[in-house]
Amino acid sequence: MPCDFKIKRRVEFSETDMAGIVHFSNFYRYMESAEHAFFRSLGFSIVTRQTDPPVGWPRVHASFDFKQPLRFEDEIEVHLLVAEKKSRSLTYVFKIRKVTEDGAIECATGRMTVVCVTKNADGRMSASPIPAELADLIELAPAELLAG
Amino acid sequence: MPCDFKIKRRVEFSETDMAGIVHFSNFYRYMESAEHAFFRSLGFSIVTRQTDPPVGWPRVHASFDFKQPLRFEDEIEVHLLVAEKKSRSLTYVFKIRKVTEDGAIECATGRMTVVCVTKNADGRMSASPIPAELADLIELAPAELLAG
Amino acid sequence: MPCDFKIKRRVEFSETDMAGIVHFSNFYRYMESAEHAFFRSLGFSIVTRQTDPPVGWPRVHASFDFKQPLRFEDEIEVHLLVAEKKSRSLTYVFKIRKVTEDGAIECATGRMTVVCVTKNADGRMSASPIPAELADLIELAPAELLAG
Amino acid sequence: MPCDFKIKRRVEFSETDMAGIVHFSNFYRYMESAEHAFFRSLGFSIVTRQTDPPVGWPRVHASFDFKQPLRFEDEIEVHLLVAEKKSRSLTYVFKIRKVTEDGAIECATGRMTVVCVTKNADGRMSASPIPAELADLIELAPAELLAG
Repeated sequence: MPCDFKIKRRVEFSETDMAGIVHFSNFYRYMESAEHAFFRSLGFSIVTRQTDPPVGWPRVHASFDFKQPLRFEDEIEVHLLVAEKKSRSLTYVFKIRKVTEDGAIECATGRMTVVCVTKNADGRMSASPIPAELADLIELAPAELLAG
Repeated sequence: MPCDFKIKRRVEFSETDMAGIVHFSNFYRYMESAEHAFFRSLGFSIVTRQTDPPVGWPRVHASFDFKQPLRFEDEIEVHLLVAEKKSRSLTYVFKIRKVTEDGAIECATGRMTVVCVTKNADGRMSASPIPAELADLIELAPAELLAG
Repeated sequence: MPCDFKIKRRVEFSETDMAGIVHFSNFYRYMESAEHAFFRSLGFSIVTRQTDPPVGWPRVHASFDFKQPLRFEDEIEVHLLVAEKKSRSLTYVFKIRKVTEDGAIECATGRMTVVCVTKNADGRMSASPIPAELADLIELAPAELLAG
Repeated sequence: MPCDFKIKRRVEFSETDMAGIVHFSNFYRYMESAEHAFFRSLGFSIVTRQTDPPVGWPRVHASFDFKQPLRFEDEIEVHLLVAEKKSRSLTYVFKIRKVTEDGAIECATGRMTVVCVTKNADGRMSASPIPAELADLIELAPAELLAG
């Protein structure tokens, strides 16, 4: 895994609001798109039966600090960095940058913590160790990248 | 059932786009909200095991003709009229009106056809008669209301 | 102003995802709906020319901690509490509760900081004092409510 | 212009609903994404001051017939075909296909009519001829492609 995984996308019209900028709720969709592309880059789908038992990844925390607005047709990068890897949870840091002719401008930084869960016999979810075949592929980002 | 079922709602900021009006994709969400409230008004949930067998309602057609834009904080009515009731499908007509001091202004008219389906033993869906306990409650709107 | 402002809503089908629960991005829309209803309860619209100069409220931070999922047709309350009132910014705390026969279950708690801005002569936004006619109406929630 | 313009995208998790499939309202977003990419392919942005006067493109009709559901991570193509070109309006046909190892499966066909408008001195919009520099680039799809 690259330490600094990223996806690129272009802001869509339906993601804007009457203030002329991307509605803040869509930053959380961008965050999730990067998470799912990150899993694909590891050879997994986030919705998968590739592990035994199958696992799910409910969110327990998600936040963004907003610095600059995004606008229609902006080309953006969503960077995903693994900030914490515990036995049953992961914490990602996200940096959303607008790509311009003069370089990339940081527009928002986010953080999401997800818990690895499996379904019990009674259908309820409970926290469960991250399957080794997946955990082994997930690499912590170096401190300087997280701070940067 | 009242022939002319309606719900009221207020346009939310996140439903607008950079043109300052409700994004057209949200009209289809309004349409669906009226459909589901209509089912509740009959004593059913659209996602239900109240019938034997349980049934689902996939869309086969949905359209809108747009006449006037909707804006943030507009108070709107979504009217639902049953235009066709066949053994395995329903067609609804929707009228979206903006409520103003001078009366209601028609902003869009829509149409949706849904098919009643059940899950087969192999997990696939197939069209199925509308359960009688539900069909008996669904009343066609009179022609003059549909045209109006 | 009531110290503990709240709105009620019912979870819509289009707010769910394939995990069968409300997609986490929609919690931020619920948060915003409560903020805008709060402004209306004070006699203002969040998109307004009622103050001189007109002001806007961009988000600088928004977060949620998720405790329990929400599902289709759940009746929910979104509570808004003013946690901080500074000269140019407000911080709200949100509590999202599912209303059941046995009482309300806390499903998520959130936090949002917004900055009061005005448009400069060159069209750019800059932070600006909250207009007195609005600031005077906004009451801090007592500590025990924020903690509760 | 190619007669059959298309974009590719992958279904995102946030586009699904609790039925496990893409919520039908998102097909209209896919439709719009293709329209805007089509304009970019002609050297224009749909939100533009490239023409004199600047024009906008409000929707007067949008519909879909749904044939097969789309699911998370499906790779899809959205084809745009120009079905009608009038002096003040355009009608597009859309075909949404799922790309599989065995070829593309048609999942939905849609239709959208948009009107070219300009802003009058009083701020209201009115229908206006499509600027020649744009109209000249827009080529009707042949009948066999529209039918296919």
